[in-house]
Amino acid sequence: MMEQERYVDKNMPSLISDLQRLIRQPSVSAKNIGIRECAVLAAKIMRESGIKTEILRLGKGIAPAVYGEVRSKKNPQKTILFYNHYDVQPEEPIDLWNDPPFSGKIRGNKIYGRGAADDKGELITRIKAVEAFLRTTGDVPCNIKFLVEGEEEVGSMHVEEYLRKFKTKLSCDGVIWEFGYVDEKGRPVISLGMKGLLYVELTAKESVRDAHSSLAVLIENPAWRMVEALRTLRDVDGKILIKDWYKEVDPFSREELGIIRKEPFDEGSFKREYGITRFVGGREGVDVKKAMVGGSTCNIAGFSSGWEGPGAKTVLPSTASVKIDFRLVPRMDPSRQLLRLAKHLRKKGFGDIQVRVIHGEAASRTPVSDPFVKVVEDAAHESFGSAVISISSAGTGPMYSFSKVLGAPCISVGSTYVYARIHSPNEFARIDLLKKATKCVCKILRNFGART
Amino acid sequence: MMEQERYVDKNMPSLISDLQRLIRQPSVSAKNIGIRECAVLAAKIMRESGIKTEILRLGKGIAPAVYGEVRSKKNPQKTILFYNHYDVQPEEPIDLWNDPPFSGKIRGNKIYGRGAADDKGELITRIKAVEAFLRTTGDVPCNIKFLVEGEEEVGSMHVEEYLRKFKTKLSCDGVIWEFGYVDEKGRPVISLGMKGLLYVELTAKESVRDAHSSLAVLIENPAWRMVEALRTLRDVDGKILIKDWYKEVDPFSREELGIIRKEPFDEGSFKREYGITRFVGGREGVDVKKAMVGGSTCNIAGFSSGWEGPGAKTVLPSTASVKIDFRLVPRMDPSRQLLRLAKHLRKKGFGDIQVRVIHGEAASRTPVSDPFVKVVEDAAHESFGSAVISISSAGTGPMYSFSKVLGAPCISVGSTYVYARIHSPNEFARIDLLKKATKCVCKILRNFGART
Repeated sequence: MMEQERYVDKNMPSLISDLQRLIRQPSVSAKNIGIRECAVLAAKIMRESGIKTEILRLGKGIAPAVYGEVRSKKNPQKTILFYNHYDVQPEEPIDLWNDPPFSGKIRGNKIYGRGAADDKGELITRIKAVEAFLRTTGDVPCNIKFLVEGEEEVGSMHVEEYLRKFKTKLSCDGVIWEFGYVDEKGRPVISLGMKGLLYVELTAKESVRDAHSSLAVLIENPAWRMVEALRTLRDVDGKILIKDWYKEVDPFSREELGIIRKEPFDEGSFKREYGITRFVGGREGVDVKKAMVGGSTCNIAGFSSGWEGPGAKTVLPSTASVKIDFRLVPRMDPSRQLLRLAKHLRKKGFGDIQVRVIHGEAASRTPVSDPFVKVVEDAAHESFGSAVISISSAGTGPMYSFSKVLGAPCISVGSTYVYARIHSPNEFARIDLLKKATKCVCKILRNFGART
Repeated sequence: MMEQERYVDKNMPSLISDLQRLIRQPSVSAKNIGIRECAVLAAKIMRESGIKTEILRLGKGIAPAVYGEVRSKKNPQKTILFYNHYDVQPEEPIDLWNDPPFSGKIRGNKIYGRGAADDKGELITRIKAVEAFLRTTGDVPCNIKFLVEGEEEVGSMHVEEYLRKFKTKLSCDGVIWEFGYVDEKGRPVISLGMKGLLYVELTAKESVRDAHSSLAVLIENPAWRMVEALRTLRDVDGKILIKDWYKEVDPFSREELGIIRKEPFDEGSFKREYGITRFVGGREGVDVKKAMVGGSTCNIAGFSSGWEGPGAKTVLPSTASVKIDFRLVPRMDPSRQLLRLAKHLRKKGFGDIQVRVIHGEAASRTPVSDPFVKVVEDAAHESFGSAVISISSAGTGPMYSFSKVLGAPCISVGSTYVYARIHSPNEFARIDLLKKATKCVCKILRNFGART
């Protein structure tokens, strides 16, 4: 075992307590709670590990980003950038948490709390890997940069602006992405791509105010109108019915299909974890994996209308509001898909339903042939004993902006157990995986530096 | 003018300030806020007017009812019962109120606040009419009874139990119902019936917890399932598609149709008030009035699923919950209609959607030929200069329980302007109508006593 890995083993208590510090500082970007405070705390923890930091700002109302840097003395030609985020999802529904959402409570092998895995757990593994090199050798195998943003959970609206404004500062030869999953068999999933996202809010309005529901004989109910509109968007098998929605999408290549087939996916385990008995559209086998990698979705993320409290209120609501997130795959342009959605609603007679865009972002994929893939794959094999390549995650992130602005390959690898309940109550990080992932980052830096 | 009417004229300031006292005591039955306190306050105000009161109780967790009584010295053979309620609808959405919801703020001819019209305004007119007789003559023209309940806005779940338990105490020859509308031309609407109500909550569950919405490629979304289920319940014109829903309903009789045709309804004024341009199903003319009197509805009173806060949360909800109120017409039995709904869902493949009954209540109508109708009609004509007979209100109340248990005709007449925003923000009572309605109650008591 190399001395950095031994350092990681010895210093797990400090990794854990620093992660708890981060969890205990709420940082909910959707509610603008604790954002500035968490940026300051993240920078402080990075400095304590020997990383030079700087708070980057774009302007008022935009969450600051934390920049971190360690220049390599012996190998200043190559640079790895760690992309992470210090913000978290809202903690609701609070009553389903076993501990307070920002407790950082440890039970056995798990640290609980909103952000424990997504993304404070990932961030801490990267900080501690850099610390391991600095404390054992006083140097790092290649230049290290960090970009830790504060708006990832609300769609990373400004990350591209950060990338453009600080392009020189952030220039690099490879990006380690903010998340990385470990499957139920302990294999890290090395993901080379991300889906895009079009997040919209639809609003139907009818009467100028809520009315007594006895008037439903005369006044149209906007919740009914929304139901009528929604049913035109998607069939029961999940296929999106908007004209030309899939028009530009390429079928998988033979090489991609080969990787998809090899990617393990334990259907039974997944179903047990979520307590479900079938998949959307009755998918099975390779179709399940194809959907995860390349399926576009139309998901009702929120539906709100009328009386949602306890008991009975006989009200005819004046408004119905629906939040929909469409996952996009490569070559689906968010703006073009938005126009198609608006046109669809108009054509189906729902032109009065307002469509407000909350976020739009294109999909991105790093080619399997990029040499950076091998660096990461080898490190993951060494640290975890095995690894899985995935051509795209089912999730979304601003990978397209990174590859476009920085021109560097982006790869995700990390410590997050696939059932770590991210975005849900009782989110946790597994301590054993935090340790392995930190060692994996050490190996990535070492391998990457050695290849220069 | 009779001396009671002069008394009413002189003592409007006390009526107004007592109404304000009632409004300023919140009494939201859906949230169990201020219920006991408001019962005590209502009894106190009744006693101040000379009415003997008693707090009736059925048991823990059931809102108390206020009983009031004044025995007539000169005419103890006949009894009128006033049925009212001291509870109010929830005040939400609070941010649409111009004043705090329980302010009792006066602006010109209007008193604002939740409950100002429904039903604290109606209650105060009846108390003050009785006070007018007691203060001017020391007697009342017939026995007076009050039943003021505290669960009307959550469906009067226990009023029938109160009626049964206190049947002798509450026995009477005629009931003046808790509400009464005054149309846009100042004509009181004398309503002889009420629709029934079946209020249910539908719940669709899928995953055991909320998940990241990237998993929408695999996990079914219960909000989508709810949309699919709802669309089978109703067509776009409002017709309910549940098998045999309308099976027992009698068509209107010739006499009923005659009354419906005579009933005024200003479509333009109604549309302007609610800011709408057409009615459900494109109804016009007599069809609008027939729908108000005899239409059954399936109204989405609430739809709640997923992220309803500000901004974007990319969540796949585990649950979707919908509250539906069906208005029922005579001969529709709530239990039978519920079975039909459940059977419909099963047959359409939605047997997994849970149906929870929140409330069920049958419709009721007092025959136009009942002599009590003439008593009320004459009093309304005298007080307001005109009056309109309606064979049924579009709303629901436990009238069926009253007519069944007490065997007395029930008639609604009162002070509530038809656009008084009951159940909505900025609910108000009109001071001119409160005065006229109080005088109208005086005349009803006088006419009813004189006919004995």
